[in-house]
Amino acid sequence: MTRIVHIGFGPMGCRTLACALERPENKLVAAVDTDPAKIGKDAGLLLGRAPLGVKVTPELPAAARRARVALVTTTSSLEAALPTLLACAKAGLAVVTTCEELSFPWRTQPALARRLDRAFRAAGVACLGTGVNPGFLMDYLPAVLTSVCRRVEKITVRRIQDASPRRIPFQQKIGVGLTPAAFRKKARDGSLRHVGLQESVDFIAAALGWRLDTVRETLKPVIAEAPTAAGYQPVLAGQARGVEQIARGMVGGRERIRLHFRAAVAEPDPEDAVEITGDPAIVSRIPGGVHGDTATAAIAANAIPAVLRAAPGLRTMLDTPVPAGRGVQPMV
Amino acid sequence: MTRIVHIGFGPMGCRTLACALERPENKLVAAVDTDPAKIGKDAGLLLGRAPLGVKVTPELPAAARRARVALVTTTSSLEAALPTLLACAKAGLAVVTTCEELSFPWRTQPALARRLDRAFRAAGVACLGTGVNPGFLMDYLPAVLTSVCRRVEKITVRRIQDASPRRIPFQQKIGVGLTPAAFRKKARDGSLRHVGLQESVDFIAAALGWRLDTVRETLKPVIAEAPTAAGYQPVLAGQARGVEQIARGMVGGRERIRLHFRAAVAEPDPEDAVEITGDPAIVSRIPGGVHGDTATAAIAANAIPAVLRAAPGLRTMLDTPVPAGRGVQPMV
Repeated sequence: MTRIVHIGFGPMGCRTLACALERPENKLVAAVDTDPAKIGKDAGLLLGRAPLGVKVTPELPAAARRARVALVTTTSSLEAALPTLLACAKAGLAVVTTCEELSFPWRTQPALARRLDRAFRAAGVACLGTGVNPGFLMDYLPAVLTSVCRRVEKITVRRIQDASPRRIPFQQKIGVGLTPAAFRKKARDGSLRHVGLQESVDFIAAALGWRLDTVRETLKPVIAEAPTAAGYQPVLAGQARGVEQIARGMVGGRERIRLHFRAAVAEPDPEDAVEITGDPAIVSRIPGGVHGDTATAAIAANAIPAVLRAAPGLRTMLDTPVPAGRGVQPMV
Repeated sequence: MTRIVHIGFGPMGCRTLACALERPENKLVAAVDTDPAKIGKDAGLLLGRAPLGVKVTPELPAAARRARVALVTTTSSLEAALPTLLACAKAGLAVVTTCEELSFPWRTQPALARRLDRAFRAAGVACLGTGVNPGFLMDYLPAVLTSVCRRVEKITVRRIQDASPRRIPFQQKIGVGLTPAAFRKKARDGSLRHVGLQESVDFIAAALGWRLDTVRETLKPVIAEAPTAAGYQPVLAGQARGVEQIARGMVGGRERIRLHFRAAVAEPDPEDAVEITGDPAIVSRIPGGVHGDTATAAIAANAIPAVLRAAPGLRTMLDTPVPAGRGVQPMV
């Protein structure tokens, strides 16, 4: 039996908790959210299912001390998540979090990373940031694939997503239906960016022992050439149907890591692909790509037993046991 | 600096050691082989390169005690490798080995597995069996891919290899040019089998927390329909051009894991594919497949830093940090 605390009842948080509770060994003992509309509600009801007998509180309740692990699904920002994570460490809770910036914070936010590492080492438990991206498709999986390479010259990863069937907030986040000017404005204020691409570059570099000179990132709209009604609202020709971000990791003055993220409605050939130029050269393709929401909820839930077996401190997917589908029941 | 001992100077052993010595942090301090033709020779000369100042001895020399890790590339059989592995534990050496039966011996050879686990725990170091197959393509990689699955119904893995460019001993091992009768005879005496398929089934079941009822394995020749000169010797129509093995893991009376291994000369569409029936469903393809010899040497060499950071005892790829291409130099 693994007693868990869940923190963060947004749409992805609810999916993650629901996925964790599908494993019979997990039991929810505390539920936390700061939203006044959720405080006092039964956690089960927030998931759209039967009551679980656990009411949402705005801070970690005393019952949290009976738990072993916290699922933290509150924010993409490491700085914003920090007080919550430190409170978990203080309560002796291992953490699995979908906080994107925590997937590999050692170069981007080294002071916060060290602080968390010290706190979790002192608590004797591990803290892991994971998810499908960052956390799997554009960092962990490419790193795993290099395991069979004698030499690596360059790694290119492409995540090309058709956003048409995705949640409305996701489509809004990638700028569907914006004019180019409105898109640029949102891009400038940072509200449009997919968070985690730089962290994925850092992860791959660390996996290979490469020292990065710089990481360069570009972001631009994918402009519709023809009108489309594939998304949550009609898109006219000339408007954005999504976003394209490219991050390039430079080593020794050369581009050695290239991550290409593109998410747009009416995108014709979605796929997740890893291309390793090296010996042996490897091209790995997942035609159609991996569904982001399901996959993020699943990997966070699957990582619970892995993080309980990991060494104490701030861990990454590089040095955590394979989450796999441990505890997944065979479908009937 | 990582001081290493190398044990086993067969063709794959030499490739593995050469790969390990391409990493500047590895230094060879002892070399072991029981072949009288190799004893006393300089290890570098056996690799076809400049002398390394390390002579091959038939047993672990005193210098081995200055090393941290042993690369063991001697045999597919765990029973045959056992004395060597125990000697390494006694000398305080962590081990990376390409011994196929050690990739996941917990169900097939539980007594030997426990004995090794105890010996390596007592020594405070880890022992890991790895390679491309078993060790990566048909077990570790599928397990990694299930990490993003909420549910898994079935896993099918296909390794379809064109053996035409492979080493002659490999082609001999898969029965190229044998008559069906000669093939069956070799299959019966066990000299033709690809070793590791059962272990790969066990690995995947363990990754998912599934309890296997049984593992069923079939082996048959791939018969040439037309003559071919693609291999190391001509193959007539009606003769074997390779081998096909299928292992099926049964859970609750149903086939949940299916591993399809086929290696033959003149094989038209080689690939490594993983197909997960589940939520989400995932199909991952590596067109052309991964070159076995290079990949096995690479993953064993890449696993050295990973095994040094793993918990003591008998480990598998499931609970070892990602080998990745750590320490690989970017190609110029």
